[in-house]
Amino acid sequence: MSKSIFYHAGCPVCISAEHDIIDLIGAENVEIVHIGEKRDRIPEAENYGVNSVPALVTPKGNVLHLNFGASISDVKG
Amino acid sequence: MSKSIFYHAGCPVCISAEHDIIDLIGAENVEIVHIGEKRDRIPEAENYGVNSVPALVTPKGNVLHLNFGASISDVKG
Repeated sequence: MSKSIFYHAGCPVCISAEHDIIDLIGAENVEIVHIGEKRDRIPEAENYGVNSVPALVTPKGNVLHLNFGASISDVKG
Repeated sequence: MSKSIFYHAGCPVCISAEHDIIDLIGAENVEIVHIGEKRDRIPEAENYGVNSVPALVTPKGNVLHLNFGASISDVKG
């Protein structure tokens, strides 16, 4: 993939990190996915190795967990 | 400040995240600081709110802890 993907769940830590990432790499270079709302994207995030949100998956498929908002299991509820 | 600062301590998690950050935002946009070697920069990192490495401090002064390599107290030893 050419874009990064930023997974979040709407938490305050997530929103703050989202703003920072957009400032750093540009909105055009990142897809923002709210996995609390788009729950069908949760398995995709897990496959990349996302354990918590907010997290950024780079175009190379590496996961950067950014601070800590919520675990994936919390998002799944 | 205009550049971001990436603080690390040479750990494998740090090096991996360093490569990802350079790929994402460009080497010219980030200062890389090895606080295991430049120990006089540790207080500066702590003042920004860096609790663990690797961490990226954005030009706005926000801290993004990226994954987890080592705590600052571990680095201080």
